[in-house]
Amino acid sequence: MIESVRPEVDCGRYPAKRVLGETVEVEADVFGDGHDAVVAELLFRFSEDEDWKSVPMDYRHNDHWVASFAVEKLGRYQYTVRGWADPFLTWQRDLKKRQDAGQDIAIDLKIGSNLLGTEIHTYEEAMRATPPRPAAEKIARYHRTLEVLVDPVRARFSSWYETFPRSARGDGKHATFRDLIELLPYVEEMGFDVLYLPPVHPIGTTARKGKNNAVAAKPGDVGSPWAIGAKEGGHKAIHPQLGSFSDFELLVKEAKKRGIEIALDIAFQCSPDHPYVKEHPQWFRWRPDGTVQYAENPPKKYQDIYPFEFENPDYMGLWSELKSVFEFWASHGVKIFRVDNPHTKAFAFWEWCLAELKKKHPELIFLSEAFTRPRVMHRLSKLGFTQSYTYFTWRNSKSELTEYFTELSQHPSREYFRPNVWPNTPDILHETLQHGGRPAFIVRLVLAGTLAASYGIYGPAFELCEHIPREPGAEEYLYSEKYEVKRWERERPDSLRELIAKLNKVRKDNAALQSDWSLRFHPVDSGQMIAYSKSQGENTILTVVNLDPHHVHSGWIDFGAPGERYELHDQLSGGRYTWNGGRNYVELNPNTLPAHVFRVQRRA
Amino acid sequence: MIESVRPEVDCGRYPAKRVLGETVEVEADVFGDGHDAVVAELLFRFSEDEDWKSVPMDYRHNDHWVASFAVEKLGRYQYTVRGWADPFLTWQRDLKKRQDAGQDIAIDLKIGSNLLGTEIHTYEEAMRATPPRPAAEKIARYHRTLEVLVDPVRARFSSWYETFPRSARGDGKHATFRDLIELLPYVEEMGFDVLYLPPVHPIGTTARKGKNNAVAAKPGDVGSPWAIGAKEGGHKAIHPQLGSFSDFELLVKEAKKRGIEIALDIAFQCSPDHPYVKEHPQWFRWRPDGTVQYAENPPKKYQDIYPFEFENPDYMGLWSELKSVFEFWASHGVKIFRVDNPHTKAFAFWEWCLAELKKKHPELIFLSEAFTRPRVMHRLSKLGFTQSYTYFTWRNSKSELTEYFTELSQHPSREYFRPNVWPNTPDILHETLQHGGRPAFIVRLVLAGTLAASYGIYGPAFELCEHIPREPGAEEYLYSEKYEVKRWERERPDSLRELIAKLNKVRKDNAALQSDWSLRFHPVDSGQMIAYSKSQGENTILTVVNLDPHHVHSGWIDFGAPGERYELHDQLSGGRYTWNGGRNYVELNPNTLPAHVFRVQRRA
Repeated sequence: MIESVRPEVDCGRYPAKRVLGETVEVEADVFGDGHDAVVAELLFRFSEDEDWKSVPMDYRHNDHWVASFAVEKLGRYQYTVRGWADPFLTWQRDLKKRQDAGQDIAIDLKIGSNLLGTEIHTYEEAMRATPPRPAAEKIARYHRTLEVLVDPVRARFSSWYETFPRSARGDGKHATFRDLIELLPYVEEMGFDVLYLPPVHPIGTTARKGKNNAVAAKPGDVGSPWAIGAKEGGHKAIHPQLGSFSDFELLVKEAKKRGIEIALDIAFQCSPDHPYVKEHPQWFRWRPDGTVQYAENPPKKYQDIYPFEFENPDYMGLWSELKSVFEFWASHGVKIFRVDNPHTKAFAFWEWCLAELKKKHPELIFLSEAFTRPRVMHRLSKLGFTQSYTYFTWRNSKSELTEYFTELSQHPSREYFRPNVWPNTPDILHETLQHGGRPAFIVRLVLAGTLAASYGIYGPAFELCEHIPREPGAEEYLYSEKYEVKRWERERPDSLRELIAKLNKVRKDNAALQSDWSLRFHPVDSGQMIAYSKSQGENTILTVVNLDPHHVHSGWIDFGAPGERYELHDQLSGGRYTWNGGRNYVELNPNTLPAHVFRVQRRA
Repeated sequence: MIESVRPEVDCGRYPAKRVLGETVEVEADVFGDGHDAVVAELLFRFSEDEDWKSVPMDYRHNDHWVASFAVEKLGRYQYTVRGWADPFLTWQRDLKKRQDAGQDIAIDLKIGSNLLGTEIHTYEEAMRATPPRPAAEKIARYHRTLEVLVDPVRARFSSWYETFPRSARGDGKHATFRDLIELLPYVEEMGFDVLYLPPVHPIGTTARKGKNNAVAAKPGDVGSPWAIGAKEGGHKAIHPQLGSFSDFELLVKEAKKRGIEIALDIAFQCSPDHPYVKEHPQWFRWRPDGTVQYAENPPKKYQDIYPFEFENPDYMGLWSELKSVFEFWASHGVKIFRVDNPHTKAFAFWEWCLAELKKKHPELIFLSEAFTRPRVMHRLSKLGFTQSYTYFTWRNSKSELTEYFTELSQHPSREYFRPNVWPNTPDILHETLQHGGRPAFIVRLVLAGTLAASYGIYGPAFELCEHIPREPGAEEYLYSEKYEVKRWERERPDSLRELIAKLNKVRKDNAALQSDWSLRFHPVDSGQMIAYSKSQGENTILTVVNLDPHHVHSGWIDFGAPGERYELHDQLSGGRYTWNGGRNYVELNPNTLPAHVFRVQRRA
């Protein structure tokens, strides 16, 4: 009997996920009827064309077995478990008991000889013998073949910087990819390894939105990059004011030199001016008055946006074209895509599209921007998205953070759902940032960068602590960058860029922060203080944050084993401390630095 | 998308279990991409030949839906879930929002008319319209059809009395079925509804065990009923000293008149004298010295017992014969079987045998006597055993009981694993009973009868508080009834029979005690006091037990809602109490009565 094989997502319907160089620890319950000795083996192979490799499984307790294999290639590995009741091992085990009890084993040696197929003369000979391989029909095999999808390391560990290329100059004039290339050192110095750009395509003019989300644009208003498509082209074209394809390719190349991948936003929707509307009217829903159905969230209307109709009779024409958009940009050097609102497109499309793309390009990474109900977000991850946006932005209190990150890092869904957490986005300015001043930005930055191996910020709004909402109670920015070219004083002395650089360096230097599963929270006797650690091998990082941006808080933290001594080195402030395992005192002043990020070493 | 359908055992590989008259509450996560309104339906039918019936599912929260169906026939029901995104419901929902916002809905009414296939003129007409049934290809169906096995009510609620028929007289002379018929009033008065007999077959003489498990029998020793088979016959014969088949049938009939079912012990093993050994030598394993392999647990040898070799070349001959043993006794009126050590027989045999038997006789009940590792016990339950022995005997402390019964009553395994708990058996005299005196017997009785809807005792050893072990530290009875005809003073004034009668009456009168899933533990500030309640509709039973048989203990129990008042009526002592919701004081003296079994009524 072979059951409870783990990892297994939805009875094997979807693959588990790993990144290059990781191991897959496979667990199973393997047992037989009667009292026979049982043997269990893990089988694995890369793709269906390879031969199975087998690994003996180790018995733990209570019929539970464990073995692991390393994943060394991008793509899909298969694995399963087999086992058998071994008569010879059983015989050896029982023979030892008889011998220990001083019984006559003459007939038992004959029984063993029959099992082995060779004469066994003595007890010593019996115990030395290797059990013969059982006949194939005696071997039970788990009835499912499971899969693990292997992604690049950046799928697990990535630091994202989102910025609008058209504001790259910072002087209020529309910038180009060339200007963005000039900005790469700024991004590199902060330590980001993904530079993510909102859509770079031509922007529609029909029903264009004006500054601050005005219903009607004024002359000179540049429009939202998410109103994709104009006479100059659609999803495979570049907005003329940003530059040419050779500029774009230069950007990709220069970024790569600095260890930065360019990530593009793929938003499958059209402005009324998108060439698709005339070329493929069947891809849209039409209203009885002969107009195309625009996007709606009744009673709200978004007349500058036409959604695709995924279930139209020519759906394969549409689906193929959309898939080719990814292929097009991949051919221009883009390896990472942030996908806009995937939950408003067909699940079936994503499963097909992402599987097809990963077959040819297993190096691609897809970030799902679905801020919706948990089961829908999880489903998108199962269907093939590499990373997912999360509810982090709305989890601010100690209990919210503890509960949510325990779920993200410990629940079985971690096998397929990889969080990417964002303190802000062009759409979301949470009230914590509106009212908490600079300390709140630091708190949210440190939480994001230490709780999650993948995180991102939208800048320069973040490092410059932009915090004014469109109106009181709103969660959007006043004069959002979505609708205009912004001026940015990137060199402002109060910018958080140096702290960000420090945090990202800590992340790069400490393997503990490069994965999520080791996260453990430590009790602190203050409701405003949160403490947690992550470990990888010998490397341990303990983070302590004062969540209240307005007041000093202190508390006693439970950390370490009684009797042990620890050296703590704060990677942000440089301070050094010696702790005794047990309870230790911490005080944090939000106006100096509201967080410790300690590297912890146990003293010899 | 339809996922997480519950109940579902091992991805649908095994059925869930219910009894006649229960309902199956089916849960599922049902959701779509986009924002369309979703509809979900539960489908069910009795057997594959019937048409599916559908029940609308209710939306709870977070894409979670629930519906239920009642099971009114013995056998297997099937169920599954279907759902669809409903364009017309979506349209109605959105139309309301538009209307509420005062928007012009003229074109929307046209869209709705197209969806409905009839002209809709006004908002009111629109909201009254019934959504058209979607086309079959638009309906998603869960990809598995699940099953629920429906057993008789006694599968869930049963009170077992195990006794050796040969000791029915009590005067030390070998008794008969006729004597056992005389004993039926005694069993009935104690309120048991299952009278379970150890094997009733002819007993082998070769290598027969003597009194107190002596290796060699002396003349006149009657042997163990589990050494099955002699020249008079095997598993389909009756031990001549017990009587004839007509006596047995009379016993079954007289018992039924009193509401008692006769349960037989089916032990698939043979004495060396069993006719099978000569008739079917291929059903046994042979040793190189030409003898049959006897049972062993090395270095222990059980030379009076020959196990069957389930994997012999004539395994279908053996399997069919063993199945026919159940059929044989079923034809003599036996509906309940206690199966001895099923874990030492082939899993594949049980799955086949029990499924075949239940197809023809869905009223049969099989109790698995497997005291072994948890996964093996669970597997046997999944394979078709109706009830299972448990670790109750070895769970004595407050924390052990709380943890174990929380698992039994709340873990998803409750869908297939039905506990039947025993304070003692002919094989097991736990040290708690050896040293705790009469109070310990009462404690274990009350725990068994109130924690579990199915329980049993081995008597009269239990009601007469037999407590002497074979040797210090042993868990077996001195001069075990397994090897001899016992004298029993059933009328002894210190017998627990009246208390047992009272407890079984409480169980019969209170639906709360007739099922296990409602069990909840209540905090008590004493490590020796345990409190728990069960409810069914308006009926609530709160049990409080002092686990220490030697000392008075008292404590405060958390029970009920603050501000509420409760009437408590002790069903054992007759005492009446009024409690206020919150904390209430209880004191229990083991030497009077170490337990309260309260019927609780909330005061108007």
